[in-house]
Amino acid sequence: MPNKPSKKLESFDNPNVERDFVIDIEIPEFTCLCPKTGQPDFATLKIKYIADKLCIELKSLKNYIWSFRNEGAFHEAVTNKILDDLVLAINPKFISIKAIFNVRGGIYTTITTTHKKSGYKFENDINL
Amino acid sequence: MPNKPSKKLESFDNPNVERDFVIDIEIPEFTCLCPKTGQPDFATLKIKYIADKLCIELKSLKNYIWSFRNEGAFHEAVTNKILDDLVLAINPKFISIKAIFNVRGGIYTTITTTHKKSGYKFENDINL
Amino acid sequence: MPNKPSKKLESFDNPNVERDFVIDIEIPEFTCLCPKTGQPDFATLKIKYIADKLCIELKSLKNYIWSFRNEGAFHEAVTNKILDDLVLAINPKFISIKAIFNVRGGIYTTITTTHKKSGYKFENDINL
Amino acid sequence: MPNKPSKKLESFDNPNVERDFVIDIEIPEFTCLCPKTGQPDFATLKIKYIADKLCIELKSLKNYIWSFRNEGAFHEAVTNKILDDLVLAINPKFISIKAIFNVRGGIYTTITTTHKKSGYKFENDINL
Amino acid sequence: MPNKPSKKLESFDNPNVERDFVIDIEIPEFTCLCPKTGQPDFATLKIKYIADKLCIELKSLKNYIWSFRNEGAFHEAVTNKILDDLVLAINPKFISIKAIFNVRGGIYTTITTTHKKSGYKFENDINL
Amino acid sequence: MPNKPSKKLESFDNPNVERDFVIDIEIPEFTCLCPKTGQPDFATLKIKYIADKLCIELKSLKNYIWSFRNEGAFHEAVTNKILDDLVLAINPKFISIKAIFNVRGGIYTTITTTHKKSGYKFENDINL
Amino acid sequence: MPNKPSKKLESFDNPNVERDFVIDIEIPEFTCLCPKTGQPDFATLKIKYIADKLCIELKSLKNYIWSFRNEGAFHEAVTNKILDDLVLAINPKFISIKAIFNVRGGIYTTITTTHKKSGYKFENDINL
Amino acid sequence: MPNKPSKKLESFDNPNVERDFVIDIEIPEFTCLCPKTGQPDFATLKIKYIADKLCIELKSLKNYIWSFRNEGAFHEAVTNKILDDLVLAINPKFISIKAIFNVRGGIYTTITTTHKKSGYKFENDINL
Amino acid sequence: MPNKPSKKLESFDNPNVERDFVIDIEIPEFTCLCPKTGQPDFATLKIKYIADKLCIELKSLKNYIWSFRNEGAFHEAVTNKILDDLVLAINPKFISIKAIFNVRGGIYTTITTTHKKSGYKFENDINL
Amino acid sequence: MPNKPSKKLESFDNPNVERDFVIDIEIPEFTCLCPKTGQPDFATLKIKYIADKLCIELKSLKNYIWSFRNEGAFHEAVTNKILDDLVLAINPKFISIKAIFNVRGGIYTTITTTHKKSGYKFENDINL
Repeated sequence: MPNKPSKKLESFDNPNVERDFVIDIEIPEFTCLCPKTGQPDFATLKIKYIADKLCIELKSLKNYIWSFRNEGAFHEAVTNKILDDLVLAINPKFISIKAIFNVRGGIYTTITTTHKKSGYKFENDINL
Repeated sequence: MPNKPSKKLESFDNPNVERDFVIDIEIPEFTCLCPKTGQPDFATLKIKYIADKLCIELKSLKNYIWSFRNEGAFHEAVTNKILDDLVLAINPKFISIKAIFNVRGGIYTTITTTHKKSGYKFENDINL
Repeated sequence: MPNKPSKKLESFDNPNVERDFVIDIEIPEFTCLCPKTGQPDFATLKIKYIADKLCIELKSLKNYIWSFRNEGAFHEAVTNKILDDLVLAINPKFISIKAIFNVRGGIYTTITTTHKKSGYKFENDINL
Repeated sequence: MPNKPSKKLESFDNPNVERDFVIDIEIPEFTCLCPKTGQPDFATLKIKYIADKLCIELKSLKNYIWSFRNEGAFHEAVTNKILDDLVLAINPKFISIKAIFNVRGGIYTTITTTHKKSGYKFENDINL
Repeated sequence: MPNKPSKKLESFDNPNVERDFVIDIEIPEFTCLCPKTGQPDFATLKIKYIADKLCIELKSLKNYIWSFRNEGAFHEAVTNKILDDLVLAINPKFISIKAIFNVRGGIYTTITTTHKKSGYKFENDINL
Repeated sequence: MPNKPSKKLESFDNPNVERDFVIDIEIPEFTCLCPKTGQPDFATLKIKYIADKLCIELKSLKNYIWSFRNEGAFHEAVTNKILDDLVLAINPKFISIKAIFNVRGGIYTTITTTHKKSGYKFENDINL
Repeated sequence: MPNKPSKKLESFDNPNVERDFVIDIEIPEFTCLCPKTGQPDFATLKIKYIADKLCIELKSLKNYIWSFRNEGAFHEAVTNKILDDLVLAINPKFISIKAIFNVRGGIYTTITTTHKKSGYKFENDINL
Repeated sequence: MPNKPSKKLESFDNPNVERDFVIDIEIPEFTCLCPKTGQPDFATLKIKYIADKLCIELKSLKNYIWSFRNEGAFHEAVTNKILDDLVLAINPKFISIKAIFNVRGGIYTTITTTHKKSGYKFENDINL
Repeated sequence: MPNKPSKKLESFDNPNVERDFVIDIEIPEFTCLCPKTGQPDFATLKIKYIADKLCIELKSLKNYIWSFRNEGAFHEAVTNKILDDLVLAINPKFISIKAIFNVRGGIYTTITTTHKKSGYKFENDINL
Repeated sequence: MPNKPSKKLESFDNPNVERDFVIDIEIPEFTCLCPKTGQPDFATLKIKYIADKLCIELKSLKNYIWSFRNEGAFHEAVTNKILDDLVLAINPKFISIKAIFNVRGGIYTTITTTHKKSGYKFENDINL
C-alpha cells in the first residue's frame, strides 16, 4: 500500500473475536478546508470502537484521513461521513467518533457521533 | 449576514438527521453588564445539544452572544434566557448550557440549565 | 445591606421556576477557629443546589460566611450547620455542600453533605 | 492523648446522625517496611466513609498510621487490615480505603478496598 | 526467582478472600517489536483486577513483561494475550488491561480488554 | 469615585519609598473592539511596576480598563497607550505591560512593552 | 510559647553559619482586613532568606501571621511591614517576601519586596 | 486582500517606534509536506520580534503560512526560510522563530532560529 | 552491600573526568523524626552535583537516606549535614541539595544549600 | 538505509550555515540494560545542538538509539558515550544531552552533559 491520500479503508481480521474489547485511536492531525471560505480547518479525531469480525488497518486510516486535506467539509457532515465510512469498512459492534475542531471566531466546536450495530448490547463490564 | 450584535439566531438543516449526535460549543468570550452596579461581567459558555431538524449557525450565534455586551443581565436569568432562545431557534432534542462566570466578591458562580424535547429519550450509547 | 458579618441569609425569587437548573457556588475563603486550640482553620466551600422558589442572595452569603471568622467550629458540624441554614433560608429541591479543609497534622479532610426535599426526584437530564 | 505510635483508634459521636454525609481523609505520609526486604515502603492513603454513630478521631488516626512505620506489611494485607481496624473502631455505614503505593521495580500498585454495613443502602443523592 | 525474562507468572494466596477488593497495577515500561517492521514499540500497561483465590506475584509479572522485549507482537493480539495469561495464572473474578501505545505515524492507539469470571456479579459498592 | 468607565487614573502615595519593591497586577477582563471589523477583542493584561513616589489606585485602574470596552483599538497601539497613560499617572521607576490577546484567525498575539525612568538602575536583588 | 496571635517573632541560632544557604517558607493562610471596607483579605506569603546569625522560629512566625487576622492592612504596606519585622528579628543577609493576594474586583495583585544587608554580596553559586 | 495562500507578506507602520517592545505570535496550524515521503508534517510556530519601522500584517502572515500547505519542506530549511522572509518583509531589530514539529518515528524535533539587525543592542529592560 | 540503614556513603570512579557534567538525583522518600515532638517528618530531596574524581554509588545513598528514618533532625541542620557527608564522600566540584519538607502547621519549608570546591569555576556552558 | 539497530550515525549538510540556530530533539524511547542486574533501563533523551557544517540524520539516529536496546550501560557512561558519538559524527559548535532515567529503587536520576567546539563563542541572542 503506497503512502498517498486515499478514500480506501482497509481492514484485517479481529484476532480476538471471542471477547469484546475496545480500540481507541487518536489522530491529532486531521485537516480539511472550510467549504465557505476555502481556508484550512484543523481537528483532533478520537475514534473508539468494539470490533466485530474486522479491525481497521492503521496505515490505510492514515491515508484516508490525509484524503480530506484539500477537500471542503462542514464540521457536522464530515464527522458523520467518517463514521459512515468506518462502519462500511469494518461493520463494528460499536463505534464513536469525536472531532475536536480548532477555535474559529472565538468559538470551539466538538462533534461526537456514534453507531451501534443493530441488536448489539454492551456487556456490563465494558467501560467506554 | 453582517458582523454586528443581533438577537436573531439563524439555523441550517441538520445534515445527519438519521442518527443522534452531540454538538459541543464553547464560547470563552461572553460579557454583559451587572444589572445592579452596571459593571462588566464575564463568563465562559458551554453549549451542548443534540439537534433535531436544525443546527445553530455559528456566525449568528457569535452575533447573538455579542448582543449581550451592553445589556444588564442576572446570572441565573441570562443563562436560562439563552437556553430559551436556542430552543426557540432550533428546537433540539436536548440542550444544556453551562455559564461559568468570573469571580466576584471572592465567589465563583456557575449556572447549568437544560432542556429536553417532550417525549425524547436518550439512546443508551450517547455519552453526554 | 451593609458589609459586615451576619448570620442572616437573604434570598430572591427564582427567575426560572419552570425548569430545574443547577447553581454552583465556590467560595475559597472560608475561615473559622479550631474549637480545641483556638487556631485558625481554612476551607474552600463548594455549594451546588437546585432552587425551588428562592435563590440565595450572594452578598448575604458572603456576609454569612464571614460570620464564622472568629467562631469555633468542628469540621463535620460546621459543614452540616451551613447546609441546615441554607435549607432554612431557601428550601431548595436539592443542595450539597463540600468543605475542603486545609491540611492539619499531615491530614487533608473534606466533608460533603447533601439535602433533598422530601418527595423530590431528579429529572434524568440533570447532571450533577 | 500523647503523640506516639499507637494501634488504638479513638472516636467521637457523629454530630449529625440525622443525615448521611461523606468524610474524606487523605494521608500522604503512610510508611511501613517491606516484609521481604525490610526496606521502607511509602503510600498515600485515601479514606472515605459515611459515619453511623461514630466518627474517627483524627489525632488517634495519625498515631495509628504512625504505628506502621517500623512494621513489615504486604500491600494487599495492610490495606485490608486498616479497613478492618476502622470498621471495628467506628462501625460506619460505608467505608473505602485506597492505598496508592510508591513505584517499586518500575511498577505502581494501588489497593482499593471497601466495606458496607450489612443492610445499608446508599441514598441516591450520595455521590461517592 | 532469578531476574530474567520469563513467561512464567507466579501467584500468592489472596490474603483477604472474605471481601472483593481492587488491585491496580501500572507498568510504564512495556516494550516489544513491531511484527511488520521489527522496530521497537512501547506502551504503558494498566492492569486492574479483583482477585479470587490468588494474587499475581509482582516480580514474576515484571519478568513476564520483560519476556516480550524481543518478540514481535501486534497491539490488539498482545493485549489480549496478556489478559489470557493472567486469567490462566490467577483466575480472577474480574480483570481489565489497558495498553496505551506510544504514537506511531501520528496515530495514538490504546487497547482495553476485560474478562469477568462466569457468573460473577460486581458488588454495587465496587467503584472500578 | 463612582463605578463608571473613565480615562482618569488616580494614585496614592507610595507607602514605602525607602526601598524598591515590585507590584504585579493581573487583569483577565480587558476587552475592546477591533478597529477594522468592530468586533470585540479580549485580552489578559499583566502589569508589573516599581513605584517611585506614587502607586496606582486599583479602583480607578478598573474604571480605566473599562473605558476601552466600546472603543476601537489595535493590539500594539493600545498596549503602548496603556503604558503611556500609567507612566503619566504615576511616573514609576520601571513598568512593563504584557497584553495576551485571545486567538483570532488561528493566531495568538501577545504584546509586551516596558518603560524605565531615565537614569534608573535596577538594584541587583530585584528579580523581575 | 502559647498558641495565640502575637507580634513577637522569635529566633534560634543558625546551625550552619559557615555557609550561605536559602530557607524558603510558604504560608497559604495569611488573612487580614481591608482598611477601607473592613472586609477580609487573603494572601499566600512566600518568604525566602539567607540567614546570618539567626533563623526565624516557625511557631512564632505562625502566631505573628495570625496577629494580622483582625487588623486592617493595605497590600503594599503590610508586605513591607512584615519584611521590616523579620529584618528586625533576625537581621538576615538577604530576605524577600512575595504576597500573592486573592482576586478583588477582577484584579489580582502581588507585592514583592526585598532587603539585603548592607555590604552583603551574593556568592555566585546561590540560585535564588 | 483575499483569503488565499500567498508568499506575499504585508506590513504596517510600527505605531510606537519611540520604544522597543516585543510582539509574540503563536500559530498552532502550520502544515507542509515531507520532501522525502510526500506525507503531511505539522508544527506550531512561535514568532517573537522587536519591530523597527514595520510590523507584520497578520492576515498576510496567515496566508503566507497557508502557502506551505502543499509544498515539500525540510524542518531546518523551512524554519530558516520563514525567518528570511520575515526579515525581508519588515527588517526587525530582532526576531526569533521556534518551530515545534509533531512527533515522527518516536522523535520530537524543534528548530529555533534568530536574527538580529546589525549593530542593534538589546536594552537591558527587555525580557525575551 | 546489604540492604540496611547505614551512614557509609560509597563511591565509584567518575567515568568521564575529561568533561564537567551534571548528575541530578531526586529522592521523594526522605523521612526522619522531629527532634521536638518525636513525630515523623517527610521531605523530597533534590541533589545536583558535578563530580570531580568520584560519583556517589546509588545503593549506598539509598541506605544512607534510610539511616535518618528513626533519627531526630532539624530541617536546616539535616540538609547541611547531608551536604557535608556527600562532600566528604566524593569531594565534588559543585553540589547543591534542596530539601522540600511536607507542610507542618500550615507552613511549607524548603532548605537549599550548596558547596563549591575551592577554586572551581563553572564552565559557561553548564546550565544548572 | 535499512531499519535495524546500528552504531552508524549519518549526517546531511547544514542548509543554513550562515547563521547559528538550535536543533532540539527529544527521544522518549531510549532503553538499554543495567550492567549489574541485566534488567532493562529506560530514559528520555533530550539532545540540543548548534550545527556547524553537518546536521544529524534522524533515521540513523533512531537506529543508533535502537542499538543500545540489548547492551549493558551505566547511566553516566552511556550519556557521555552518546555525546562523544554525536560529536564525532557532526562536530557541532555546541551540543548538550540530557538523559532522564526512569525511577529505580525510589531514586530518579538525570545526567546532563555538554560539549562546545574549541574556540566557539555563543552569540548573545542564542537562548538555550
